[in-house]
Amino acid sequence: MFSKQTYINRRNQLRAQFKSGVLLFFGNDEVGMNYEDNTYHFRQDSTFLYYFGINKPGLYAVMEIESGNDYIFGDDFTIDSIVWMGSQPTIKEMAATVGVENTGSVADFSEKLYHYPRGTVKYLPPYRPEHLIKLMRFLGISPAEAKTKASVEFITAVGEQRNIKSAEEIVELEHAVSMTAEMHQAAMRYAKPGMTEAQIAAKVHEVALAAGGGISFPIIATINGQTLHNHYHGNTIKEGQLFLLDAGYETPMGYAGDMSSTFPVGKTFTGKQKEIYRITLSAHNGAIEMLKPGVHFRDVHMQVARTIFDGMKALGFTKGNTDDAVANGAHALFFPCGTGHLMGLDVHDMENLGEQYVGYCGIPKSKQFGLKSLRLGRELKPGFVITIEPGIYFIPELIDLWEQTGTNKEFINFDRVNEYRNFGGIRNEEDILITETGHRILGKPLAKSIEDVETERGLAFK
Amino acid sequence: MFSKQTYINRRNQLRAQFKSGVLLFFGNDEVGMNYEDNTYHFRQDSTFLYYFGINKPGLYAVMEIESGNDYIFGDDFTIDSIVWMGSQPTIKEMAATVGVENTGSVADFSEKLYHYPRGTVKYLPPYRPEHLIKLMRFLGISPAEAKTKASVEFITAVGEQRNIKSAEEIVELEHAVSMTAEMHQAAMRYAKPGMTEAQIAAKVHEVALAAGGGISFPIIATINGQTLHNHYHGNTIKEGQLFLLDAGYETPMGYAGDMSSTFPVGKTFTGKQKEIYRITLSAHNGAIEMLKPGVHFRDVHMQVARTIFDGMKALGFTKGNTDDAVANGAHALFFPCGTGHLMGLDVHDMENLGEQYVGYCGIPKSKQFGLKSLRLGRELKPGFVITIEPGIYFIPELIDLWEQTGTNKEFINFDRVNEYRNFGGIRNEEDILITETGHRILGKPLAKSIEDVETERGLAFK
Repeated sequence: MFSKQTYINRRNQLRAQFKSGVLLFFGNDEVGMNYEDNTYHFRQDSTFLYYFGINKPGLYAVMEIESGNDYIFGDDFTIDSIVWMGSQPTIKEMAATVGVENTGSVADFSEKLYHYPRGTVKYLPPYRPEHLIKLMRFLGISPAEAKTKASVEFITAVGEQRNIKSAEEIVELEHAVSMTAEMHQAAMRYAKPGMTEAQIAAKVHEVALAAGGGISFPIIATINGQTLHNHYHGNTIKEGQLFLLDAGYETPMGYAGDMSSTFPVGKTFTGKQKEIYRITLSAHNGAIEMLKPGVHFRDVHMQVARTIFDGMKALGFTKGNTDDAVANGAHALFFPCGTGHLMGLDVHDMENLGEQYVGYCGIPKSKQFGLKSLRLGRELKPGFVITIEPGIYFIPELIDLWEQTGTNKEFINFDRVNEYRNFGGIRNEEDILITETGHRILGKPLAKSIEDVETERGLAFK
Repeated sequence: MFSKQTYINRRNQLRAQFKSGVLLFFGNDEVGMNYEDNTYHFRQDSTFLYYFGINKPGLYAVMEIESGNDYIFGDDFTIDSIVWMGSQPTIKEMAATVGVENTGSVADFSEKLYHYPRGTVKYLPPYRPEHLIKLMRFLGISPAEAKTKASVEFITAVGEQRNIKSAEEIVELEHAVSMTAEMHQAAMRYAKPGMTEAQIAAKVHEVALAAGGGISFPIIATINGQTLHNHYHGNTIKEGQLFLLDAGYETPMGYAGDMSSTFPVGKTFTGKQKEIYRITLSAHNGAIEMLKPGVHFRDVHMQVARTIFDGMKALGFTKGNTDDAVANGAHALFFPCGTGHLMGLDVHDMENLGEQYVGYCGIPKSKQFGLKSLRLGRELKPGFVITIEPGIYFIPELIDLWEQTGTNKEFINFDRVNEYRNFGGIRNEEDILITETGHRILGKPLAKSIEDVETERGLAFK
């Protein structure tokens, strides 16, 4: 937790964006896996953490703009609970640590809300079923209407504030990224042919938990790097394959790290793997070099697309004019996703608030395949923390779909591509702070060049 | 997954308990941690798994009693999803693997439900907010009424069926328990003074994940064993302390193991620790000896209570007539919880259906402190799988409460108890099958005697 003053300052900055009304914050609840009391690890709502800092379930907070009063509501533990859970601070004690004097029970919260004039209470978009139930219970808003009635003014104010990371947040994020690098290094020094993907994912998870935090998103640890949302860990890994790891640390305060690495299951990359790896690395480093305030992230993405298309052209996978090809989205056969995203208390920072507000400032987002998956398309500002993660993927389902439909056939040599249809995928990912004058890669360095990755892999076979 | 015939047989057995109506099964959905797409690991509803076997989110199933038709509903992946997630079986393909021919979309499900006469659709108690939303959406039942309108007939039929484990379930449970023993053994051979609790929890978690499964409940790994629901892992462990681990493996099919072990942070127990450990072990082994069909589990629990009270009397913590003391619940100062619970697809099997039905057959449950926490109070039958887990805990908050209120003061020597107020807690837990003639302890043996535990601990210091 930061100091009391941090939370007071954050609320004051938010309050200054409004002239009237009431801002409502739902903390998250525990979620039962297979029955109510067998819960997942608790994850507090990030906006609640940002303004109210308390990492406990069952809380509600209210900021009254005109009176200037802030409130935290929740039910204290009973003596029964204390016997089972040990001594627990009261709501009043916890609220005091974040500079909030006004507290009450959930019944008080309900009563309080009842007395605000209709239409004055602003809330953020719900993303859990429990939020829908609460909006219905406390504000009489039906689940069908709950998202559309969220306050764009509130979303925008929170988005603009949370996007600029403070010095103390950067320290926390730097720690998250360094631990993330340790998770990846542990995998590189551990994986050997004959292991399962699950064994490597388990080792990576252990490093995160042992450090006292957790994982900021479900671990991707796979020999099928081309399947972008892949949480299957059942395969045995073999010499000659590529292993793609995408994993991040979450600090006890909730800040995320997010890195990807790709390494050979054996000691060294094959010649073919090196050729593709060099293209992604060139796109990756080229993107990082561009990062500074005032640059539009969409331009960084388009530069990455051109580098990938050109690199693939040199290897005979693509053909034709690069600018035309990229304008038509031909690169997306190999790179169907975005170059990066915002990162902070959420690994995709504030994705729950809506990318069109947080990542695009309301600028309309492209509907083109590939570009529509770019989560960030706005001008960069000092204090933004973003990821850079170009990749090259050979996705059999996508290759077949494009070949059958003739999509971008003037730019793709499908015969050549089909020779690589079982190649897999390659991605490197780092986390970068936009500074006043340029950028800074966060955290402890992780092996990224072919030589450095092969050196790390050598340690696994000692 | 079991064979298709297993699921067909299970449904036929359930169907035979009803004369008419429609049985409704909600599969679970994904749950977002801090935004919708950043999900916890998916956990299917156990009753859905039991009758329909498919471990995927977003599914609904229906059994029509009179027509004999079974249905599975859910939406197939789009080609867009397949590009991101890889090839996925269709609902129809998945349903075929569990012997269900009738399938449809979620819209079809909604349409189908609309046409059943009011009051004919039976459902089980909801335990996730998403279930409440669905009951409202599809059956028009308000969240406030959702639990009370669940079908007791349906609960009872499922409870009686799932309580008797089949031969193939016992194989699966045995595997879960053996892996659980490996998790505990790994901790005993790993923990050393100066480590954090988190490091040991992380190692235990790694063993589970590396085997391809997961954990059946949040790991308890603590030097404060007296705090029964304790998931804090921030302490550094020190020579002279006791370490209590309560952790279980969940197989990929969803079956649970659940064991507890208590070991010294140093190589050996202290003399005081040995004295208390011997009492819990005696209660533990005495309980297991009693287990056979026809025995009332409440009697096993009362026997454990007497053993603990007597043992504590010999050490000067308690006084007076044992039967009177136990009748008054005086043992619950040290043993405020139950001797064990049912175990199967859920670590507390079917807790979501209600202990009064599943663990008590409708027999009223005691309201006495201690006894009210006993989850199982019925006659044992062949095929039941249960845990045995007596413990002795010195809970400072409870000691103070009883001393202040004079609770059971005729049976407790508070001065002596207060000398041990920082002792911690001790628990051993094993998983046992009730056989036709008696019982069988499931899984690979784990060190339990003082000598065996100290031998394991010696390995950590080699």
